Amino acid sequence: MSDIDLQLVKTYLLDLQQRICEAFSSIDGSQFSTDQWQRSGGGGGCSRVLESGAVIEKGGVNFSHVFGNQLPPSATASRPQLAGRSFEALGVSLVIHPQNPYAPTSHANVRMFVAEKPGSDPVWWIGGGYDLTPYYGFTEDVIHWHQTAKRACDPFGADIYPRFKKWCDDYFYLKHRKEARGVGGLFFDDFNQGDFDSVFALLRAVGDSYLEAYLPILKRRKNLVYGERERNFQLYRRGRYVEFNLVYDRGTLFGLQSGGRTESILMSLPPQVNWQYDWEPTADSPEAALYTDFLPHQDWI
Amino acid sequence: MSDIDLQLVKTYLLDLQQRICEAFSSIDGSQFSTDQWQRSGGGGGCSRVLESGAVIEKGGVNFSHVFGNQLPPSATASRPQLAGRSFEALGVSLVIHPQNPYAPTSHANVRMFVAEKPGSDPVWWIGGGYDLTPYYGFTEDVIHWHQTAKRACDPFGADIYPRFKKWCDDYFYLKHRKEARGVGGLFFDDFNQGDFDSVFALLRAVGDSYLEAYLPILKRRKNLVYGERERNFQLYRRGRYVEFNLVYDRGTLFGLQSGGRTESILMSLPPQVNWQYDWEPTADSPEAALYTDFLPHQDWI
Repeated sequence: MSDIDLQLVKTYLLDLQQRICEAFSSIDGSQFSTDQWQRSGGGGGCSRVLESGAVIEKGGVNFSHVFGNQLPPSATASRPQLAGRSFEALGVSLVIHPQNPYAPTSHANVRMFVAEKPGSDPVWWIGGGYDLTPYYGFTEDVIHWHQTAKRACDPFGADIYPRFKKWCDDYFYLKHRKEARGVGGLFFDDFNQGDFDSVFALLRAVGDSYLEAYLPILKRRKNLVYGERERNFQLYRRGRYVEFNLVYDRGTLFGLQSGGRTESILMSLPPQVNWQYDWEPTADSPEAALYTDFLPHQDWI
Repeated sequence: MSDIDLQLVKTYLLDLQQRICEAFSSIDGSQFSTDQWQRSGGGGGCSRVLESGAVIEKGGVNFSHVFGNQLPPSATASRPQLAGRSFEALGVSLVIHPQNPYAPTSHANVRMFVAEKPGSDPVWWIGGGYDLTPYYGFTEDVIHWHQTAKRACDPFGADIYPRFKKWCDDYFYLKHRKEARGVGGLFFDDFNQGDFDSVFALLRAVGDSYLEAYLPILKRRKNLVYGERERNFQLYRRGRYVEFNLVYDRGTLFGLQSGGRTESILMSLPPQVNWQYDWEPTADSPEAALYTDFLPHQDWI
């Protein structure tokens, strides 16, 4: 069995953050700003943000490496045997909100967690995934997104993609709307099947395939002509994104409630959002198609 | 001791809703739409909404009267002795988001709750209050708001206003921002000191004084000249309103998680909102004054 090597993970994550920012900068023509920050409880991070770009209305790509003497209660709720252990967590988390309503919002996250106690083996696991939130659905985009996700997972077992795909559908769901946040992708947590090398390889496969999954879609949609109607629908649908992140997302809520860096956590919120009372799309419109043809959970492969 | 009379409360609340809508319609020039709705668990309500008015960008005044066989868990968490009782709840809840950034957002709520069990006396209490969320602070407005609140409470005991004022400061607080939502006002819950007549009189005093507290402020500020700078600050600050309602507000979260009518619950969210990464007001600006002179808790009388 191979030993865990967090330095290797850190090097990978910082390089991933850099590659992702470079790819988006090259498409957008604008640069990401860089904010280094420290966490009072231990550790810190680097938030990279691009706002009001030509293609990206708001994008944030966050690296963080935090540690502490005691696992937070939210992390031990489902793992009581780990209470009291010290911990170390490393991850990259990103959200891209494009300007063009035909280009979907995307989110990705890869993280590794280690819980330690003197005299015991460290307990460690990975989590993350990526999911897509279109405003206007394009079947070929969603198929490409899921095929890329599946290709990234397949070397690690035929059960991985279906499991993480279903997990994603279950997780990114707005119960109060009875509605999926988007068309899904991959989601996983507490994953540690296998030795460090193979688990770290899966983490990299997910991280590395994100750009491959998203960039072709962004490139195809970023210059489509749109008007006020499409923009209004995008701003309205972004409300659902806010509702999910603030009401349900465990990472967001844990971060806000445990004294994380608020501006880095809420980097995920869209730049402009509208709420309109009891709005419904007209029947058989492209807006209605999002609800009828794309948001319902389905097999996209 | 006087018996509780929910029909009396219902008549009062429906009249209050009507008077409030008429007052705002008369200032705005637009009418509120009316949505009657049923709740599958029992009861229903009437949502009245005004959007894109000349003065009010979005306003919702909601009446609801719901009942059920069993108090929801969130209501018995702090009152375990009531678990299993049937319940009936009546209330009016409203939020007004004006167009003009110099006019503050206001929120008010009055509600009565009854928990019953055959063979036992009914247990009942009231809750509610009102609070003000300015974008640009005007000392005379905040003093008027709090003086009106105090005048409404004083007949019921000298301790009522200070107690409800502090409760409001404590409740409408964004822990992750270390920031008050606004300049406060009144908040109370589980209140049943005295007999039905006097408690219902306090509920009416709070309900009736809301317009008296808010209308003079709205009238003074609704026509002030403003530009893009003030509008942007308003849209940015509205993000805090969303953060509070979706992350902390018990009524919102309980409603969303227990199958309430989503559109009526989220009527409180502003029509247009912006989030900008790590924005700070420039020192000594009117925007900075909100943070330094108005949001910190203080005695406004």
